[in-house]
Order: sequence, then structure tokens, then C-alpha cells
Amino acid sequence: MNDCIVCRIAAGCIPSRKVYEDDLVLAFLDISPVSPGHVLVVPKEHFNPLWNVPDEVLARLLSVAKRIAKAQMDSALAPDGVNLFQTNGTAAGQTVFHVHFHVIPRKNGDGAGWTFPEGAYASPEEADATAAAIAAALEKA
Amino acid sequence: MNDCIVCRIAAGCIPSRKVYEDDLVLAFLDISPVSPGHVLVVPKEHFNPLWNVPDEVLARLLSVAKRIAKAQMDSALAPDGVNLFQTNGTAAGQTVFHVHFHVIPRKNGDGAGWTFPEGAYASPEEADATAAAIAAALEKA
Repeated sequence: MNDCIVCRIAAGCIPSRKVYEDDLVLAFLDISPVSPGHVLVVPKEHFNPLWNVPDEVLARLLSVAKRIAKAQMDSALAPDGVNLFQTNGTAAGQTVFHVHFHVIPRKNGDGAGWTFPEGAYASPEEADATAAAIAAALEKA
Repeated sequence: MNDCIVCRIAAGCIPSRKVYEDDLVLAFLDISPVSPGHVLVVPKEHFNPLWNVPDEVLARLLSVAKRIAKAQMDSALAPDGVNLFQTNGTAAGQTVFHVHFHVIPRKNGDGAGWTFPEGAYASPEEADATAAAIAAALEKA
């Protein structure tokens, strides 16, 4: 057993409030919820970051995450909406280095929000060049 | 053609800075980027919200999103991290009602962040009941 907290939860060595489990995926309540019913969906196997998760595992993770979002909406929690959120790197707010998808019930006026400053491109040409740079990196990958 | 702006982009009626396209999925630069290289990954077909997206389309969307995140990291943008973000309902910040995944390059100290108030449960029993309520709704779905 490595010292990854999510691996330990998946192995049952650290208790969690489980919402769902199958052969590839585990879903449980976030211990520091931003709203009641905030769930983490994780692969049982250790992967990090997002781009190291095999497609078949990623497909299962999202299939489970969407069903949990619907279950949150259908449950007595009755949120007004749901956010899906995932972090890669400390710059992106990642603190636990085992891929996890946050599924977060939201209520109207719950005070949560995003402090993203809107960063416009200096020019249309800069935006064109940025799109081209990502597309080129995508083809090389 | 319906009046959904994403459907119009997918149909080529509204121009976009395209990063990737296949038979199911389109990825293009967000016109109101929170950081340079901020990409939206969308299904070409109209689905909303997340839980109405068929598993096979969702699998493709995430496979593309992860490759784009890696391409952003590999590109000249050289971010320090990447966030994946998806909204369902106005309460969750949704303003365009065609499912879309934000793939957002992040830099250390970029000033972006989450204003989520941390909402603890009143008691362990309340947390237990919440996990059970979501698990029950999941089984009924």
C-alpha cells in the first residue's frame, strides 16, 4: 500500500461514506464538502493527472459521475444545479494527487462562485495562434 | 437549425477557433477565456444537462478533453496545471444550455480560485443520511 490517501480509502484502510462502488470506480462523500452531498468519484487504481487515466477508466468515471449528479438532483437534497470539477496541478487547486472528480450540488444563491478573472487575448491574431498551438500539440501527442 | 449557439457553432453557422473535431465532438477556444488557451469541448448533437448525454458520447468528450489538457501542457502556453469544469443549471453557473466541458489552463498565482464556502454537515449522522440518500436515488435511477 502506498501513502496515497485515495488509494487507502479505495482499499478500505481509511473509512469513507460510500455512495457507489464497482470494479473500477468508487464514489464517496467529500470530507470537506462545499455543499451537502458533495461527492468525489475516483478510479480505484492510482492515476494522476487526468491525461494518465486510460480511456476505458475515464469513460466509467464519467458514466458514474453523471448518474450521481442525477441522483443528487432526484434525492431529498433537491439542489438547483450541479457542478463537475477536476483539478490537475497545485496551480489548478489540486491537493490530493490521485485523479478525482468533484460532483457538487448547487443551490440558487448559495454564495459559491468562481473568481476567474476573464483573460482576453491581446488580439484576434493572438487567439488564432493559441488555437493553432493547441491543435498542433494535440496532433503530436 | 435551432437557436442554440453551440449547435450553430457545431454546424459552422457561427465561426469559432477550432482546436479539434471528429464525428461526435468539437473543441474550440472559449470566446470569453478565463486564461489563454481556455477550450470548450462539446458534443455536436444537442444534449443538456450532463445526465442526458449518452455514455458513448460522454466517453468521447472526456477522451478529447484529457488529450486537450495534455496538449495545453505540451504547448507553448506551458501552464502549471489544468482545470476541467462543467455546469448544470443557472445555480451552477450555466449560461449556455448545451453541455460543454471547460478545459482551463492555469498558472501559479493567476488569481483564479473558488469562492466555495466549506459547508460542513451538522453531525456525522447527517453526513451518513446524505450518503444514504444519494446512494438510494442512484439505485432508483
